[in-house]
Amino acid sequence: MGYPETTDAFAVTDIKNWSDFTRKDLPLKKFDEHDVDIAIDACGVCASDVHTITGGWGEEIPLPLCVGHEVIGKVVKVGSKVKNVKVGDRAGVGAQIGADLTCDNCKADQENYCPNSVDTYGAKHTDGTVAQGGYSSHIRAHDYFTFKIPDGLDTNLAAPMLCAGLTTYSPLKRLGAGKGKKVAIVGLGGLGHFGVLWANALGAETYVISHSASKKDDALKLGAKDFILTNKEGWAEPWKFQFDIILNCADATDKFNLPDYFSTLKVNGYFHMVGFPDKPLPQIMAQAFAPNGCYMGASHIGNRPEMEEMLELAAKQNIKSWVETIDISEKGIKEAVTRVYNNDNVRFRFTLTGYDKIFGKRA
Amino acid sequence: MGYPETTDAFAVTDIKNWSDFTRKDLPLKKFDEHDVDIAIDACGVCASDVHTITGGWGEEIPLPLCVGHEVIGKVVKVGSKVKNVKVGDRAGVGAQIGADLTCDNCKADQENYCPNSVDTYGAKHTDGTVAQGGYSSHIRAHDYFTFKIPDGLDTNLAAPMLCAGLTTYSPLKRLGAGKGKKVAIVGLGGLGHFGVLWANALGAETYVISHSASKKDDALKLGAKDFILTNKEGWAEPWKFQFDIILNCADATDKFNLPDYFSTLKVNGYFHMVGFPDKPLPQIMAQAFAPNGCYMGASHIGNRPEMEEMLELAAKQNIKSWVETIDISEKGIKEAVTRVYNNDNVRFRFTLTGYDKIFGKRA
Repeated sequence: MGYPETTDAFAVTDIKNWSDFTRKDLPLKKFDEHDVDIAIDACGVCASDVHTITGGWGEEIPLPLCVGHEVIGKVVKVGSKVKNVKVGDRAGVGAQIGADLTCDNCKADQENYCPNSVDTYGAKHTDGTVAQGGYSSHIRAHDYFTFKIPDGLDTNLAAPMLCAGLTTYSPLKRLGAGKGKKVAIVGLGGLGHFGVLWANALGAETYVISHSASKKDDALKLGAKDFILTNKEGWAEPWKFQFDIILNCADATDKFNLPDYFSTLKVNGYFHMVGFPDKPLPQIMAQAFAPNGCYMGASHIGNRPEMEEMLELAAKQNIKSWVETIDISEKGIKEAVTRVYNNDNVRFRFTLTGYDKIFGKRA
Repeated sequence: MGYPETTDAFAVTDIKNWSDFTRKDLPLKKFDEHDVDIAIDACGVCASDVHTITGGWGEEIPLPLCVGHEVIGKVVKVGSKVKNVKVGDRAGVGAQIGADLTCDNCKADQENYCPNSVDTYGAKHTDGTVAQGGYSSHIRAHDYFTFKIPDGLDTNLAAPMLCAGLTTYSPLKRLGAGKGKKVAIVGLGGLGHFGVLWANALGAETYVISHSASKKDDALKLGAKDFILTNKEGWAEPWKFQFDIILNCADATDKFNLPDYFSTLKVNGYFHMVGFPDKPLPQIMAQAFAPNGCYMGASHIGNRPEMEEMLELAAKQNIKSWVETIDISEKGIKEAVTRVYNNDNVRFRFTLTGYDKIFGKRA
C-alpha cells in the first residue's frame, strides 16, 4: 500500500516512549469531493504535538499516532467541489481539518469552535479513520481548512504560522490590538515570539513579560519596546493599569501569581491565554478581577478569515518567524520533540524539512 | 456634639457581635468646598455591609464602624464648588464617596477604579477621619459621588439601586446587553433581581440560572423568558453556546462547576461576576475557556455616567425594585443584617427607613 490509500508516516506507538517515532503506513480517510491531498514539504513542531504524545493534557490518544499540524506542501489532488486551491498550488494546513460548516458557530465564522470540529491529528473522521498529521508524506484535509500560501513567504518560515501564528494572531485581532494600544506578551517561546511579531505588525506598542532575563535581547530584536522581568517580588508595581491586552503564551501559568499580572491591565483589560499548562491554574478570589474590572480567558486557534489575513500581513510586511530547521527522520524528530519538551533553547520554532530526501519527490 | 461635626450612627463595635449595633456619635470628615451633606431618609442593606461587619472578606475593619452605602436623603449643605446638587434636593450616595479625579482612570470615566478611591464606609479620608455609612443621621460625600434622584423614583425603591443597581447595570451596559443579545443572570437575590430588571429594560432576552426551584416564579414575574435549574448533572447540556453574557450574581461561586457555566456561553462570551464569595473560586484548567473562547471577569460598582443613565432608565421605564422596608433601630438593623447573612427569604433587598422617627426631622 501507499499513497493515495495511506500516508508514509513517523508515528508514536507508545506514550511511554513518546520520543521514539516509527515509520509506518497509516490509512488516510476516504477521499471525498471536498478533500485536498497535499504532498508535504515542511511541518512545524508545535508544543501541542509534545503535550499530546506525552499524554500531558490527560487525553487518551489513538496509537499509532502521527502528529504535526503546521503543514505546507504541494497540492496533488483535489475533490470536485474544492474551491480554495488547485493541483500544483503551494498550500498549508493548520490544527483543524474539518468542521460541520452548518452549525451556528460555523455560519458565524467561528468554525474553530464548531462542536464537530476535526483536529488535524488524533481525531476520528466520519468514516472511522484516525486523522494523521504532518510528520508524514501526505495529508488529506477539507478544502475549507486548506490555505494557499502567498508567494512572498518562505515555506519553512510560514509553516509554524499555521498553528502558532494563527493561535496568537486571532486573539490579538479580536481584542483590538493595533495603533494606540499597549500589548504585553508573556513568555517568549514559540507562541510568544509570534505574539510580538503580530502585535507590532498590527501597530500596537508591544512589551515582553518574562521570568528569564536571558530573553531580553531577543524580545527587543523582535520589536518589543521594553522588557519586564518577573523574577522579583513587586515587579508589577511600576506597570499598574498599563496594558490593554496581555497575551499569555507561557505554559507555566499554574505557577503565576495571577493578581500581579491582572494589576498591570488597564480598566476592563484582558489576560488572554494561548499556552495551556498541564496543571490547573492557581486558585484565585473572584475579587482578583475587581481592582480594574479585567477579564481572563483563552482561545482555540482562529478562523479562516483570520488565517488568510495573517498570511497576507506576513507577506506584505515581510514578517519572518524565527525558525530552526531539522531534517525529518526518526533521529531528527526525536531531537526536535525532546528539545521542545525540555524547553532547550528553541528559538523559537522547529520546522521539519527535507521531505523529498525521505519520501521521494511526490509532486 | 452632633451634626455638623458628627453623625448620629448605628455602629458595629466588635466583629464577633456583628449584629449588635450601638448608637454613637461618629466624627464626619472636615467639610470642604466639594462636599455635600445629606440628612438621610433611607439606606439599603447591602450584602457588602454584612461581608464587611462579619470580617468575611478578610479585611481589617476600623471600629466602631457604621456601614450602609445605598443612601438617599435631603441635601442640607453644599460646598462652594458643588455643581451636581443644591440644598433641598433629594440626592443619593452609593458605595464610593471619593477619588482623586485626576488620574488616568478618573479622566477616562473610570473613577470606580481610581487607586485613590474612597469607599463610603471604612475608608480613611485624607484628614484621617474614617468614612461612616448610611445607617446614620447624616453623610458627607464628594459632589462627584452625589446623585440627584429623578422625581419619578420612590426613595425606598431607589436606595438599593445606588450600589446593587449600579453594580449590575454597569457590566451589563459595558458588555453590550441589549436587543438581540441573550443574557443569563445567575443567582436570584438582591443583585440578581436587578440583573433581570436591567437586562430586560435594555432589551435583552433574559434568563435566570439558579440552583433553587423556588426562584422560578419570581424570575418569571421579574421578566425572565425562562428559568434554568442547575440542581441536576447535565443541566447545561441543552444550553450550549446560548448566552452572550452570564452575569453571575451568586456569592457561592466557590461551589460552582465553572466549565458547565462557561459551556452555555456563545463564542467569546462573558462570565461576569458581581457577587464575591468569601472563599476562592474553584480551581480550573486554562483549557476550560477554550471550547468557546470565553472570558471570566468581575467588576467594581460603576461610574457616574452609568449611575445617571441607570436612574434615568429606571424613572423612564418605571422600573420597581423589590424591596422590604424595615425601620432603622438597633432591632431593625439586627433583623435585616441577620436575614441577609442567613439568606433568609429576602425578596430582594432591605431598605432601612423611618429615619425621622429616630433622628428627628433634620431638613
